[in-house]
Amino acid sequence: MKKVAIIMGSDSDLPVVEKAIETLREYKVPFEVHIYSAHRTPERARAFANTAAENGFGVIIAAAGKAAHLAGAMAASCVLPIIGIPIKSSTLDGLDALLSTVQMPSGMPVATVAIDGAANAALLAIQILALSDGALRERLEKSRESARDKVLAKDEEISKKYGCQG
Amino acid sequence: MKKVAIIMGSDSDLPVVEKAIETLREYKVPFEVHIYSAHRTPERARAFANTAAENGFGVIIAAAGKAAHLAGAMAASCVLPIIGIPIKSSTLDGLDALLSTVQMPSGMPVATVAIDGAANAALLAIQILALSDGALRERLEKSRESARDKVLAKDEEISKKYGCQG
Amino acid sequence: MKKVAIIMGSDSDLPVVEKAIETLREYKVPFEVHIYSAHRTPERARAFANTAAENGFGVIIAAAGKAAHLAGAMAASCVLPIIGIPIKSSTLDGLDALLSTVQMPSGMPVATVAIDGAANAALLAIQILALSDGALRERLEKSRESARDKVLAKDEEISKKYGCQG
Amino acid sequence: MKKVAIIMGSDSDLPVVEKAIETLREYKVPFEVHIYSAHRTPERARAFANTAAENGFGVIIAAAGKAAHLAGAMAASCVLPIIGIPIKSSTLDGLDALLSTVQMPSGMPVATVAIDGAANAALLAIQILALSDGALRERLEKSRESARDKVLAKDEEISKKYGCQG
Amino acid sequence: MKKVAIIMGSDSDLPVVEKAIETLREYKVPFEVHIYSAHRTPERARAFANTAAENGFGVIIAAAGKAAHLAGAMAASCVLPIIGIPIKSSTLDGLDALLSTVQMPSGMPVATVAIDGAANAALLAIQILALSDGALRERLEKSRESARDKVLAKDEEISKKYGCQG
Amino acid sequence: MKKVAIIMGSDSDLPVVEKAIETLREYKVPFEVHIYSAHRTPERARAFANTAAENGFGVIIAAAGKAAHLAGAMAASCVLPIIGIPIKSSTLDGLDALLSTVQMPSGMPVATVAIDGAANAALLAIQILALSDGALRERLEKSRESARDKVLAKDEEISKKYGCQG
Amino acid sequence: MKKVAIIMGSDSDLPVVEKAIETLREYKVPFEVHIYSAHRTPERARAFANTAAENGFGVIIAAAGKAAHLAGAMAASCVLPIIGIPIKSSTLDGLDALLSTVQMPSGMPVATVAIDGAANAALLAIQILALSDGALRERLEKSRESARDKVLAKDEEISKKYGCQG
Amino acid sequence: MKKVAIIMGSDSDLPVVEKAIETLREYKVPFEVHIYSAHRTPERARAFANTAAENGFGVIIAAAGKAAHLAGAMAASCVLPIIGIPIKSSTLDGLDALLSTVQMPSGMPVATVAIDGAANAALLAIQILALSDGALRERLEKSRESARDKVLAKDEEISKKYGCQG
Repeated sequence: MKKVAIIMGSDSDLPVVEKAIETLREYKVPFEVHIYSAHRTPERARAFANTAAENGFGVIIAAAGKAAHLAGAMAASCVLPIIGIPIKSSTLDGLDALLSTVQMPSGMPVATVAIDGAANAALLAIQILALSDGALRERLEKSRESARDKVLAKDEEISKKYGCQG
Repeated sequence: MKKVAIIMGSDSDLPVVEKAIETLREYKVPFEVHIYSAHRTPERARAFANTAAENGFGVIIAAAGKAAHLAGAMAASCVLPIIGIPIKSSTLDGLDALLSTVQMPSGMPVATVAIDGAANAALLAIQILALSDGALRERLEKSRESARDKVLAKDEEISKKYGCQG
Repeated sequence: MKKVAIIMGSDSDLPVVEKAIETLREYKVPFEVHIYSAHRTPERARAFANTAAENGFGVIIAAAGKAAHLAGAMAASCVLPIIGIPIKSSTLDGLDALLSTVQMPSGMPVATVAIDGAANAALLAIQILALSDGALRERLEKSRESARDKVLAKDEEISKKYGCQG
Repeated sequence: MKKVAIIMGSDSDLPVVEKAIETLREYKVPFEVHIYSAHRTPERARAFANTAAENGFGVIIAAAGKAAHLAGAMAASCVLPIIGIPIKSSTLDGLDALLSTVQMPSGMPVATVAIDGAANAALLAIQILALSDGALRERLEKSRESARDKVLAKDEEISKKYGCQG
Repeated sequence: MKKVAIIMGSDSDLPVVEKAIETLREYKVPFEVHIYSAHRTPERARAFANTAAENGFGVIIAAAGKAAHLAGAMAASCVLPIIGIPIKSSTLDGLDALLSTVQMPSGMPVATVAIDGAANAALLAIQILALSDGALRERLEKSRESARDKVLAKDEEISKKYGCQG
Repeated sequence: MKKVAIIMGSDSDLPVVEKAIETLREYKVPFEVHIYSAHRTPERARAFANTAAENGFGVIIAAAGKAAHLAGAMAASCVLPIIGIPIKSSTLDGLDALLSTVQMPSGMPVATVAIDGAANAALLAIQILALSDGALRERLEKSRESARDKVLAKDEEISKKYGCQG
Repeated sequence: MKKVAIIMGSDSDLPVVEKAIETLREYKVPFEVHIYSAHRTPERARAFANTAAENGFGVIIAAAGKAAHLAGAMAASCVLPIIGIPIKSSTLDGLDALLSTVQMPSGMPVATVAIDGAANAALLAIQILALSDGALRERLEKSRESARDKVLAKDEEISKKYGCQG
Repeated sequence: MKKVAIIMGSDSDLPVVEKAIETLREYKVPFEVHIYSAHRTPERARAFANTAAENGFGVIIAAAGKAAHLAGAMAASCVLPIIGIPIKSSTLDGLDALLSTVQMPSGMPVATVAIDGAANAALLAIQILALSDGALRERLEKSRESARDKVLAKDEEISKKYGCQG
């Protein structure tokens, strides 16, 4: 199976990014975690992206805050699907990171998820890998069922607790 | 090769979405185009998503404006990667569509591209399909080279026209 | 009397939604509370909306955060009045939920109240039911008088405390 | 049948509000149209709201732009359901009118629709009246079917035109 | 001397509004403080404004949050200068109150100060009254000098502490 | 009678500011119009403000766009009431000018009106001057009546044209 | 004299950037103009920045729109002062470009000017070069005087045209 | 070596500004720290700017919040490069200060850094001074290397801790 790369711009992003790590572990998808900064280690970031495909990676997840260039820098250096996680790390509630990640110019897509949406970034990577891995797809579908069942159980609990009053 | 589905919420989205169609044609990736509305034909939209994988689709691109629920509705009904294009179709410059598309809850990722970013949505779909199609990947890389060469040519032209004055 | 349905997308919305429950109780309006997610249990949500009228519901209140599709999904599945409560549950102060709830396409209205405005959502539902229930209308008017009297009492207290100085 | 009042703050709002008038006509719902300004004719606006119920109105639709107080002023003067249409009439894309209309304090709900969403305001009023009018409800449901059929027809046309290429 | 009226929409605004009270006391300007709500006690608010001039008021300061209509309602009911203080009292950082207060339609000005800017509201009222009160104007000018001197003193302290290093 | 000064930061602001000029003429209030830039002619701007009171001015209206410092610079140089008109003159819809004008620090109020709200700026100045000029106040009140009558006339026309249909 | 580099991300930015070119010409400051894209020609952009100092450049001006990474990429590759011009080139009024340019992480400053502020970018570059070039500084000061004189002339014209009426 | 001036509008800005002081100390660049307010001590601020060049300053850093005019006032009074730090000091997350600082009119550039970006303001000043100081430039480059090495070290640590799992 192809690996997923999780790249973050700074170790201060780790508390958010950990949800992506947990999700990949839960699905037993192989992954690597790196700290590459679009600004502090741009050559390392570029070198990683350039060789990611030949090194067995199928998807790159890039998390960064503020003027978040990391996902775009990855996108500029390889044709693998790049998933961007905008991180809230300034006073602006993550809006700066969202716009810096999603508003990419034509030719360089970044698949952007919600602000601090690390779990969804991992799930999107898994959905992509599952296109050629039936077992993985089944696990995704089971997880959906389980999420559905949890909501149904909570509904039962809540609707009983408050139910049909007048 | 797996097909790409391009779904839009209204035929008024077609002028924007046509760039996605052109891009898929350019790469000779098979696709279907549909108008399904998350609100006007929710069952049809859901039925399409439910059977998309078994009908040979690998990626779904969903374009919608305002309170753009289409991509999220697709995401809720299948585990294929869903790409969302926020369409500017209200007074709010597309910001409503962007937030309605990207801020998905945990468990239901939508790979969001820029407002009106139809060409990038198609390219992202192609990057995903290229993971298991070396020829497609080569075409993506060639296209990058060609985009790079165009910029270099324009740089030469511009830098000569204005170059090194004092 | 017709019942009010209070639907929330997640049990994490309950602390906000409880003000709607309290308000309906205060007015002795019959209601049910459910957790249906537009994304995790879309079929259940749709089934509920489809049969809500015949099951005795007159109004549906739907509360959700982030890319808040729940009220819109309800609106797409029945012609009862749907009241949407945008919940602040992301870093974006509820603006994402507000726009996702209120900016509905033509044909599918959602009666949107303020961010986290659960008490007002219940009051709006009661106002709607009061159209064919004179007693309920009287209770609404009495409550207005009581609110007015409370402000007048506070005015008296405050204007005395700080009153007419120079 | 109870009447719908359409109130606008200025005759410059009429081009937007006309969609509400057309919609009510289409459904043969009785209505009156008035220009009352929350600021220029506040007493008249208040007098209208105070007597609206006894004058046979069931719902009031209020349209206003900028610091849009009209719907709130109506809400403060009667316990009928008030529907607010934020009008884009300043440089701020209607965001000022949206926030001024929707962010009402506890106790005074305004059922807010999209910026310039006049057709939806009328539909919401009709949904409310349809609670005690089965024939009206049937017309709403037929209209949904017709909207659905239009989308399906357009889908057939578009999907054929662009369909299944590779 | 003409009096200043300080009106707030709710007693929850008092902690912010107290800075206006303190400022008026400091300048020995006569004032009254009232709680009138544009929505809960609209008639009282209007009655106050209607008779404010004949009751000896020269300026009205109105403080309100969210869909802040209070200052506008005052402006609609008298031709005294109305000063609006937008209060931060929702999740939206006071932006809703700012736009609801400042974006008034032509003919009904509200002199808007910063979000939570109660001290400045009082100072503006004093500046207005000082137009016909030379002693008051002198006090304003002395206060400016004193503010200036405080900054100069702090500058001396800070510039010494950190000064001219290399 | 005290004069009103209308200061604008650039002659490109004149088309907006002309509404203030017309309004002052209509009320026969004496005024002067100047172009002083907070950045290009700061000393002239300051000199004007420093001597404005002794030169017979009672109120200063300052109009500027983008990082609109003009009203604040006036406020810093005299204790007359300063009215700020934020001008839309950048890509940001006047939001930059609004925040630069209204968010003044404690001690330096600027009475801010709506974006491009020149007529209201003039009316506010007139309201201030009318505090010591009964004739001016009467003209303001008559203008209110006339505005009210225009709305009432339009209401009659519109309500007849569309009136009471079913 | 050190040269100024003007880099833009796309030739579609040229109409805005031309004001920077004109300004540098006016001041007879030597410059080069290039089109390097942070995403399409990242290596070329980096190579340019890496060698800019040794090639005689003293300042780099970088103009880009949307998720504007160009200035940041320059900043990451050299320690020359980098000036960023956010270009309005999407539906979002240039706010995306502004935040992507200015919200740089610690260690990598970008001197950001106003959206589409190309003339100011050039002036800032000239101010920087003028630190070691007295003649250049004199030209800057003369230009200030000339700008001041133009405003004063316009003031004379306007203040006469509208002056001191009552 | 030319000195850097750090000016702040209020001593409440000092906790943010201290990072600029630390950075200049680290690079052994001579500096002065002052509190000058664009509104409370405008003449002192102007006098400082007017004589800054002849007093040996090469760059002025100005930090201010809300309607942040300080950097612009400095820019209006000298032709030295002015660096603006927008300070978050209101309810609006620093967006008011950012727009008030960066959206300067043509002719008066302010080199704006990120909200609360004091360290970068100092680094930008150092980059400017380093244009004529090779030793300073070397220190900047070494610091870049050291920043790069820290990221590489953290990458090694993190990539080992989480590395290559499946």
